[in-house]
Amino acid sequence: MESIKPGAFDGRSALVTGGLGFIGSNVARALARGGARVTVVDAGHPRHGANPHNLEPDPDTPDDVAHITVIRADLGEPLARAAAAEAELVFNLAGQVSHLDSMADPLFDLDVNTRSQVALLEGLRHDNPDATVVFTSTRQLFGKPQYLPVDESHPVAPVDVNGISKHAAEQFHLLYGEIYGLRCAVVRLTNVYGPRQRLRDDYQGFLPIFVRRALLDETIEVFGEGGQRRDCLFVDDVVDCLLRTALAPDAPGEVFNVGNDEHLSLREIAEAIVEAAGSGRVEFTPWPDDRDAIDIGSYFGDSSKAKRTLEWAPATRFADGIARTIEFYRRHLEWYL
Amino acid sequence: MESIKPGAFDGRSALVTGGLGFIGSNVARALARGGARVTVVDAGHPRHGANPHNLEPDPDTPDDVAHITVIRADLGEPLARAAAAEAELVFNLAGQVSHLDSMADPLFDLDVNTRSQVALLEGLRHDNPDATVVFTSTRQLFGKPQYLPVDESHPVAPVDVNGISKHAAEQFHLLYGEIYGLRCAVVRLTNVYGPRQRLRDDYQGFLPIFVRRALLDETIEVFGEGGQRRDCLFVDDVVDCLLRTALAPDAPGEVFNVGNDEHLSLREIAEAIVEAAGSGRVEFTPWPDDRDAIDIGSYFGDSSKAKRTLEWAPATRFADGIARTIEFYRRHLEWYL
Repeated sequence: MESIKPGAFDGRSALVTGGLGFIGSNVARALARGGARVTVVDAGHPRHGANPHNLEPDPDTPDDVAHITVIRADLGEPLARAAAAEAELVFNLAGQVSHLDSMADPLFDLDVNTRSQVALLEGLRHDNPDATVVFTSTRQLFGKPQYLPVDESHPVAPVDVNGISKHAAEQFHLLYGEIYGLRCAVVRLTNVYGPRQRLRDDYQGFLPIFVRRALLDETIEVFGEGGQRRDCLFVDDVVDCLLRTALAPDAPGEVFNVGNDEHLSLREIAEAIVEAAGSGRVEFTPWPDDRDAIDIGSYFGDSSKAKRTLEWAPATRFADGIARTIEFYRRHLEWYL
Repeated sequence: MESIKPGAFDGRSALVTGGLGFIGSNVARALARGGARVTVVDAGHPRHGANPHNLEPDPDTPDDVAHITVIRADLGEPLARAAAAEAELVFNLAGQVSHLDSMADPLFDLDVNTRSQVALLEGLRHDNPDATVVFTSTRQLFGKPQYLPVDESHPVAPVDVNGISKHAAEQFHLLYGEIYGLRCAVVRLTNVYGPRQRLRDDYQGFLPIFVRRALLDETIEVFGEGGQRRDCLFVDDVVDCLLRTALAPDAPGEVFNVGNDEHLSLREIAEAIVEAAGSGRVEFTPWPDDRDAIDIGSYFGDSSKAKRTLEWAPATRFADGIARTIEFYRRHLEWYL
C-alpha cells in the first residue's frame, strides 16, 4: 500500500456532510491538513454525534481546522444544496446511526437516512453532475451473516429500520451514478472507534459504551458470554480508506465492505479497553429483550475488494488504537459526555 | 388448485389501501362479493390510478360495491390509521407505480411508496398487531434479470427510484413481521392488465398504453423489435392470488414472485391487443433515450413458490383476458381516459 501523496488534496474543494460527527470531523480535519478547502454541512443533532468540539484546534496540529467552513443545515435545505453544488469531492457521512433509535422512531430514521440523501443527490445531479461522492454505509444491513467473512456478494437482509433506510440510500447513490453519471461509491463500515466519537449514552454502538464505562471506572456489561467476534476499525484507518475511495479511479459505481483482519470477541474487546484505561471492569449479563431482537451474532467483513481497488489496508491494531483513543478522551472527556 | 371456499370472507373485516385504483378496486369488489366488510383507504391521486368509477355498481353484480366504505386519505393520516386499526385483513396496494414519474420526482415517490407505508405499519403494530397484511410489490425491483424465470432468490437490483422505494417498503413489512409479529406477506407482481386500469396517458406500464391506443384506433409504438418477452397477468388471477395470500397459513413472512407461465413478446402482445380490439395498428420505433436508461429486457417470473404455498395458479390466457378487457372498456372507456 502506498501512502496518499502529499498535496493530493491541495486546492481541491470538499464537502463533508455530517462533518461535526465522529467520522465526519476526522475526515474534515484530514482533508484540511491535506490542503483541501473544506465545507462541513451538519444538521447538528447532538444525538447523532454532532459536536462542535470535534472541530476544535488540536494543540499538535493547530492549523488543520482553520479553513473549515461549517454550515448548520439538513441535507435537504437550500444551504446544503448550495454547498454541494461547489464541491469537487463529497464525503457523505450525515446520518442517524443508532439502531435502537431507528426502531423507536422509524419515520425520523427514514427521513434522515434516506429522504435527505435523495434531496442531496437530486441537487448534485442538477447542479454538479461531475462530483465524486463517497457515501458511508454500514455492515448492519447484512443482518445476521450467512457466512464469514462477509464480502460484497453477501445478501442484504437488514434486521432493523436503520439497515433498511441506509440500504435504500446506498441504492439511490448507485442509481444516480448509473443514470446521471455522478461518481458515487459506497463504503460499508464495520464498528469504528477512536477520538471524537459520541460517548454520552447507550444509543449508539457497543464500542463507545465500553470506552465511556471504562473511563468512568464503571462496569462494562457484556451480553451473554461475549463470544461474538467483531472486526473493529480505528477511525484513522477509516479516514484513510474514505480519502482513497475519493481518489481511486475505479471506485465509482462500486460498493466496498471495509473491515479489519483482526477479529476479537466482545469479551476480548471489553477486556482490552479496561486494560488500556486502567479503570472499569467487565461483567456478563443475560440479553435484554429489546437488544436480543436485533442482535446479529459474529460479524467480520472481507475487505479484499477495498484493498485491491483502493490500495488500502487497515494499519492499526486494536491495542494501539484503543490506547490512542483513551489518551484522547483523558484530555477531552468533558466534551463527549 | 382448489377454489376459495364460498363464504371464506363472510363477516370478516378487510381494509384495501389504494382501493380506488386498478388492482385495489378489483380486490375490494371481490372481497365484498365474498361477504367481507370492506373499507377502502385511498389518497385519490388520479395520476396513480385512483378512479371513483372503479367502485361503481356493475349491472351483472350490482350488490358487490354496496357495502364498501371509502375513506379519502393518505396512509399516514389519522383516518387511515383508524381504519387500519379495525381490519382483520389489510390488502396494501396503495402506491405510485409509474417508473417515469419516480425518476421525475424521486422524493414524492419515496414519500408515497416508503414513508406512508412505514406510517401504516407503525399504526398497525401499536393498534392492531394481529392483523394480516398482504403487500403488493413489483418485479421492477429485480432490474434486468440475471436469469429467467426470476425466482425469489434472484438478487434485487432496482434500476429506478420506484424499485428502490418499493423494495424498502417490502423490507419494512418483513421487519415488522419479524420484530412485532404482524402477519405480513409480500407479493411481487409482474405486468397486470384488465378492467379498471388507468388508460389516460403514458406514465404507467406498457399494457394500458397498448390497450388505449388500440381502442382509439391509434398506432401502438413498440420500441426496438419488440422481442422482449413478458408474463402478463389478468387482474382476476391477481385478485385470486392476493385473497389466497391473506388466507394461507404459511404466507406470513414470505415473499412471492407472481407471474404467468405464458411468455409473450411485446410484439405478440401488441398484435393480440389489436386483434382483440379490431382497431389500431403496431409500429416499430427506435428506443427513446429516457426509456432506454431504465429498460430491463425480457422478464418472466417463477411462480412455483406461490403455486405451492398459496395453492394458486393463473387461470386466464392472454387472448381471453384481453378480450374481456376490451369488452369492459368498450362499455366504460370514457371513465378511463
